[in-house]
Amino acid sequence: MNGAFALDRIRVVLSRPSHPGNIGAAARAMKTMGLSQLWLVSPASFPDPVADARASGAGDVLAGARVVERLEDALAGTVLAAAVTARRRELSLPRRSARAAAVEMVDWGRSGEVALVFGNETSGLSNEEVGLCAMPVTIPTNPDFSSLNLGAAVQLLCYEMRMAALEPAEAYDDPRPQPATHDEVEGFLGHLERAVTESGFHEPDNPRRLMPRLRRLFGRVRLEKEEIGILRGMLTSFQRKVD
Amino acid sequence: MNGAFALDRIRVVLSRPSHPGNIGAAARAMKTMGLSQLWLVSPASFPDPVADARASGAGDVLAGARVVERLEDALAGTVLAAAVTARRRELSLPRRSARAAAVEMVDWGRSGEVALVFGNETSGLSNEEVGLCAMPVTIPTNPDFSSLNLGAAVQLLCYEMRMAALEPAEAYDDPRPQPATHDEVEGFLGHLERAVTESGFHEPDNPRRLMPRLRRLFGRVRLEKEEIGILRGMLTSFQRKVD
Repeated sequence: MNGAFALDRIRVVLSRPSHPGNIGAAARAMKTMGLSQLWLVSPASFPDPVADARASGAGDVLAGARVVERLEDALAGTVLAAAVTARRRELSLPRRSARAAAVEMVDWGRSGEVALVFGNETSGLSNEEVGLCAMPVTIPTNPDFSSLNLGAAVQLLCYEMRMAALEPAEAYDDPRPQPATHDEVEGFLGHLERAVTESGFHEPDNPRRLMPRLRRLFGRVRLEKEEIGILRGMLTSFQRKVD
Repeated sequence: MNGAFALDRIRVVLSRPSHPGNIGAAARAMKTMGLSQLWLVSPASFPDPVADARASGAGDVLAGARVVERLEDALAGTVLAAAVTARRRELSLPRRSARAAAVEMVDWGRSGEVALVFGNETSGLSNEEVGLCAMPVTIPTNPDFSSLNLGAAVQLLCYEMRMAALEPAEAYDDPRPQPATHDEVEGFLGHLERAVTESGFHEPDNPRRLMPRLRRLFGRVRLEKEEIGILRGMLTSFQRKVD
């Protein structure tokens, strides 16, 4: 698959956008860089004539936008989800810079759908939203004034993804093993939580942030489809013995 | 001179901008990337409250903007002038991509003032204006939709100049958590093998390459010291229940 085609595999996900103008600006920014998949999680107003006006010639991206209720819905079926965040967070993985992240996103885009998630204009992404994504991403900015607007952030990351997609050299020459989908990873994490609760290691009344830590670990590894089967088989064997 | 200081040497020149909103957007885009020198050649309206509103927290960049009549005035005293242009032009030099141009601009910025010139929103730069600049620059875009607005073009080039100034770019922005040592990882893998053998999931007589697969999975994740403790605690809880 060539790089330009990989751009079709990239979902730009705007979570709870407040201003329809920013949705239009994001659509235009995407199209200038050859991206087309816009996903909107509970937008305050959409469709909206203000979004249409700001999209300029990118009305087709708006028309094809998918509106969903929860971030989980926008991530279903993806093999990698990245969260754009300006803040450091406790327990989060080390953040990738936009450029390094774009290379990785485009690379994974050769294996399946990938998502790049942007938060609300004022409040950003919640910790729960970041927790659903395997890769936090930050755009290097002036530390004294990091106030990028949403359209500008989408523009910069789409540009980096286009640059990464058009790179002549591919980092990997071998066929990649088939990655697990978001749903398969979530299915495994649910199974893991049941098993550690049954074994007494996880006490839901005193969670000590166990599940976020395990989610962070297994999010980082980018599990393969076959590995999900092995891990779940292993958990089932532990549970059977417990009975 | 360090790279960040070189950013102070870069003039962003807007030639004959029609919309004061774009002047404000350019000021904000510049400040997010650490640039501060805005030059305006015969703006249609400046100062203007629409520019102030769009500049958001970058009012200082607007307040310091220099307004001149002719492009020549904005280029006076520079050691390198680059012209951002979407079109190929007869007789023009080969265009540099934004990334390559930014590296060169920042490099020349260590020797003196440099200018990056953007044209009018509708008509772009005239051939005469491009002729005053030594380096034509283009931003790679979707050939079917190259409609970047002025603010977005300024944002992308200022970002590239920041990235060039801060080279060597750091892929990670955060301090890395303490990694587990080789012995700690091996200790965990040994523990895992005992637990899956006890649970009956792993049959040493019929190993089906289970341990190499688990080793591959956990080798890939680059476990952290703290995670080893969690994983081994979890295994112990599974084993306890088995007894």
